[in-house]
Amino acid sequence: MTIATPSHHHPAFKFLLTLALSLPLLAQAAEPLPSWNDGPAKKHIIEFVQAVTDQGSKDFVKPQDRIAVFDNDGTLWSEQPMYFELLFALDEVKRTAPQHPEWKTTQPFKAVLENDHKALAATGMDGLMKIVGATHTGMTTEAFDDYAKTWLSQARHPKTGRPYTEMIFQPMLEMLDYLRSQDFKTYIVSGGDTAFMRTFAEKVYGIPPEQVIGTTFVTTYQYKDGKASILRTPKLAHNDDGPGKPESIDAVIGKRPILAFGNSDGDLQMLQWTAAGPGKRFMGLVHHTDAKREWAYDRQSQIGRLDKALDEANQRGWTVVDMAAEWRRVYPYDAATTEQVQ
Amino acid sequence: MTIATPSHHHPAFKFLLTLALSLPLLAQAAEPLPSWNDGPAKKHIIEFVQAVTDQGSKDFVKPQDRIAVFDNDGTLWSEQPMYFELLFALDEVKRTAPQHPEWKTTQPFKAVLENDHKALAATGMDGLMKIVGATHTGMTTEAFDDYAKTWLSQARHPKTGRPYTEMIFQPMLEMLDYLRSQDFKTYIVSGGDTAFMRTFAEKVYGIPPEQVIGTTFVTTYQYKDGKASILRTPKLAHNDDGPGKPESIDAVIGKRPILAFGNSDGDLQMLQWTAAGPGKRFMGLVHHTDAKREWAYDRQSQIGRLDKALDEANQRGWTVVDMAAEWRRVYPYDAATTEQVQ
Repeated sequence: MTIATPSHHHPAFKFLLTLALSLPLLAQAAEPLPSWNDGPAKKHIIEFVQAVTDQGSKDFVKPQDRIAVFDNDGTLWSEQPMYFELLFALDEVKRTAPQHPEWKTTQPFKAVLENDHKALAATGMDGLMKIVGATHTGMTTEAFDDYAKTWLSQARHPKTGRPYTEMIFQPMLEMLDYLRSQDFKTYIVSGGDTAFMRTFAEKVYGIPPEQVIGTTFVTTYQYKDGKASILRTPKLAHNDDGPGKPESIDAVIGKRPILAFGNSDGDLQMLQWTAAGPGKRFMGLVHHTDAKREWAYDRQSQIGRLDKALDEANQRGWTVVDMAAEWRRVYPYDAATTEQVQ
Repeated sequence: MTIATPSHHHPAFKFLLTLALSLPLLAQAAEPLPSWNDGPAKKHIIEFVQAVTDQGSKDFVKPQDRIAVFDNDGTLWSEQPMYFELLFALDEVKRTAPQHPEWKTTQPFKAVLENDHKALAATGMDGLMKIVGATHTGMTTEAFDDYAKTWLSQARHPKTGRPYTEMIFQPMLEMLDYLRSQDFKTYIVSGGDTAFMRTFAEKVYGIPPEQVIGTTFVTTYQYKDGKASILRTPKLAHNDDGPGKPESIDAVIGKRPILAFGNSDGDLQMLQWTAAGPGKRFMGLVHHTDAKREWAYDRQSQIGRLDKALDEANQRGWTVVDMAAEWRRVYPYDAATTEQVQ
């Protein structure tokens, strides 16, 4: 590593400055991805990153084009027994029920209030959209932000008893850090509500609000008596699932990612779109194979079904991360299950 | 300025490192905004930036919250005799007319082909949307990008004879650079088509695609025979004018700006939204007062009407930039009109 210092030719200065600037790089180089076993996934990730960041490589990509996109549910945090945002919506129905006496006799709300999962399931996608509409819209962006933050700070997962924001994947956190240390810009592109994910993405993943892309509702700017606010309406603006993912990537980022990571068929189009660009690309899938430390599910799952995307990944040689085999640790609060050979 | 160097206590090292790290700051401090006269606008801008970037100031804002938004047409480049993007659309109607023989007898296309401005104006907003739809949609994002880039490289402005991308405001370029040197993130938030603006914003303004927010059309992801593309459809997704500006800022950035700059009533809501946040804020308007070097227009103009926003700016003490008085130079290719006293 040489640094041009046109106005300071003293060799000692050059050496010291070089050393000072190298320290963060050395720290990173020591061991990226410590919670990953030395399996094929870790090898693929590091090989890819080295190829696109090495100035001498034929696969070199300029820093401003190092766009990496990650699904959230099932990719950066868990998604069982159902998407955490749906658990938020169900809790919100219960919390706000006193202001809606009619919910006692109206589906899908009646089913939620009576914990009647069968009746709730029978209301289908229509019922789901009513629940999401009632809990996510009809309020200002500031009010929604407050509700979501309050819930995230108080709610606990039914199986682990942990706050949802602790049920994030330590190996993926390390991957995000590693990519950012190599001048990648890391984005979330997920079916979750953009505003919901923004309440924790920066604190938990180090991903700022402007790099969180998700499902959105039409909003309305309001200005009364000098007070400005933005109202969330129940009208869906963009469904950020399946083909909606490359569409939102194009609309919001305007560049094609060189790395995409998902875990379900809803991520397939994002992976295809990433793969279809020129030059070296990385496509990855988290495969939930670990019933002991997390959950095991794929082709038949209601939530996070991984079927067509798994076939395409296998056919095309995309990286499929076998969670049970490749992750030494799942959550940050877990002890590492295997000692890695240095 | 002191830098902690825990592992290197040699005083010479400390001094040299401090000096090396200070050089960019000193270069910047020498003279920000050289194309601005020492008038009130330059003073307000510098005072604001110093207040929010000085760690000891009560108005200090963390770098990640230094969000600055700029309108494009009339704020960063000229917009007369009509929005440049409309001139592109009219030229595109002519270029593609051979593929649309029916346009010879159908309005608004007939009027465009016959240069009949009166008949064109008579088709109103409906005619305009048809022209925009025919020239901006019904093609892949890649094809549109090609058309726009080709036009921008070949077309010349009817009055100046210059490429449109040279008719940008030198004082605003300096302001963008100055803000970025102080860790601001600069965004465009404009009524223009996002994809159109992205074809030149990075090269011309240093604003990358992901920081360009504008009017958008619904797109459709397509995947056939292993080839992925995104089709632009004529359905409007978001009209980024007036109240659409705070709405898109919230949707895309998810943070409230601390600085907003516009030039017309279409920017009023963005300025209000910025002003309504806590802490120190900067709201600015470019006032086109210079018929000699650019154009002079405000309350009665068809394009870029500045009326209500001018009243509100005057009432609330926002910064109104009198172009004739405050800008030493308008376009980068102009000679400076007045010598600034150092």
